[in-house]
Amino acid sequence: MSLLVVGSVALDSVETPFGQKEDVLGGSATYFSTSASFFTPARIVAVVGEDFPEAHVSFLKGRGIDLEGLTRVPGRTFRWKGRYGYELNEAKTLDTQLNVFQTFSPELPAAYRDTPYVFLGNIHPELQARVVDQVRSPKLVAADTMNFWIQGSREALLKTLQRVNLLFVNDAEARQLAGEHNVVKAARAILGMGPQRVVIKRGEYGALLFEKDHVFACPAFPLAEVFDPTGAGDTFAGGFMGALATATSDIDSTVLRRAMVMGSVMASFTVEKFSLERLREVTHPEIRARFAEFRKLTHFDDLGPLER
Amino acid sequence: MSLLVVGSVALDSVETPFGQKEDVLGGSATYFSTSASFFTPARIVAVVGEDFPEAHVSFLKGRGIDLEGLTRVPGRTFRWKGRYGYELNEAKTLDTQLNVFQTFSPELPAAYRDTPYVFLGNIHPELQARVVDQVRSPKLVAADTMNFWIQGSREALLKTLQRVNLLFVNDAEARQLAGEHNVVKAARAILGMGPQRVVIKRGEYGALLFEKDHVFACPAFPLAEVFDPTGAGDTFAGGFMGALATATSDIDSTVLRRAMVMGSVMASFTVEKFSLERLREVTHPEIRARFAEFRKLTHFDDLGPLER
Repeated sequence: MSLLVVGSVALDSVETPFGQKEDVLGGSATYFSTSASFFTPARIVAVVGEDFPEAHVSFLKGRGIDLEGLTRVPGRTFRWKGRYGYELNEAKTLDTQLNVFQTFSPELPAAYRDTPYVFLGNIHPELQARVVDQVRSPKLVAADTMNFWIQGSREALLKTLQRVNLLFVNDAEARQLAGEHNVVKAARAILGMGPQRVVIKRGEYGALLFEKDHVFACPAFPLAEVFDPTGAGDTFAGGFMGALATATSDIDSTVLRRAMVMGSVMASFTVEKFSLERLREVTHPEIRARFAEFRKLTHFDDLGPLER
Repeated sequence: MSLLVVGSVALDSVETPFGQKEDVLGGSATYFSTSASFFTPARIVAVVGEDFPEAHVSFLKGRGIDLEGLTRVPGRTFRWKGRYGYELNEAKTLDTQLNVFQTFSPELPAAYRDTPYVFLGNIHPELQARVVDQVRSPKLVAADTMNFWIQGSREALLKTLQRVNLLFVNDAEARQLAGEHNVVKAARAILGMGPQRVVIKRGEYGALLFEKDHVFACPAFPLAEVFDPTGAGDTFAGGFMGALATATSDIDSTVLRRAMVMGSVMASFTVEKFSLERLREVTHPEIRARFAEFRKLTHFDDLGPLER
């Protein structure tokens, strides 16, 4: 089933301890849709400027992504510049130029309005709500957010959360949103704000999925070389939602767990190279093989007798 | 099969955001042996002073722990005082009084020398080596260590590691020991120092087991109330080694995975209350039930078809 993402398409400049790149393809909608496109038809609502390279448009088209909702307007494309230290868990933002993204107001093409799976990338919660206004009886609406909105637009965010079925946040955001240090308590508090599920992303430590009566823990894939963590969270969400959209049964715990692992699988590829370089080349057999690796990484046998 | 631990028996004073306790039972050998005693007969080599309460001795005896190697000498028992903030991941040490522990030199009773499973608690690496000198063909020697020895007694530690089959460290210690920031690279470097296995403990994020050709990731149990993390690492090691000692087959990846989970199960109980309070009351059915919870927490189904 098809999948809609609303978010940023950007040009990123990134410095890591292992190298640097200028004006490479980035943005939440880009990572999300590319990741999801391995599993399900994806659709973008986003905006770029006149300077956005046609080669990037071709790449997204080549991945089968529906770009009817990608508008090109006068001005420059959204630019983000960040630097990672050896910790690699959090970027230091060096520069943000919103450019054409500043006046972005998501308008869904008529053909998008019946999309069953909707991902609201990290934009102003009022814009996220405006997207929900435009879709007709979606099967699942998921959203991302960040400290900036949690602090600065809390009321709007809480309103939007009432209309969201699943929230993706990192652990610091979860704590801030809930006003609870303990991550389990924070998750429960968020489940009381509207979403029936919350995914708490913890970078190199993996991710937790909380539902009312279930918790699922998925580790991050232990990689000896993490090159560039940019986009890992959106790639995770794309793999997660993409896997969800392929499910032939109801969205139950079984389906959600597989989605968690697929999110982790896709994120583990993204961080292996700069920008979307690894996602450009990764294959379905590689994805399947890494999914199998995750089972080896996490599964164990039933308990035998406990002697004394 | 029996299990020997050499380490500290202490009186701890602990402050957490949830309360404080003075001179409660603590020490690496105490947590380790109590945790292990749920699975296998445990033996202690440690020292206490004249002030060590007889009630604590009775408790350990009551758990079936062999105390022939627990000597009582003139002077005061080792005391540690620490404080945790809301992070709960690392204690701030407020005071350490080594007392009788300062001149501790582990001497194994004759009956201990054939113990098949040996755990070298966090003491000077030369003392750890002296323990290995005294055991005859053990099945497995495991060790703990800390930043103090990694930095201050590196040569002695590297010598001891040559005689150790399994090392327990936290992630900061692993990085420091290996001189590698990436945890996978750090683990590989440690495997090159002697041990065939290394367990990297990551507090609330769980633990990783590295062997030459396998990695296993076990999450920490998501608890809404973490009361006092003191002793979690030694409880983990005790549950791990205790489960290992009950294995009827060779120490292979299957057995080690189960040990990892049992270590996590036992640690998850310890942190629920102060000192060893939770370990005093926990039951085998509770342990089995939490082990089963870990399977629910981590397991997921095979990948079905990936549509596009």
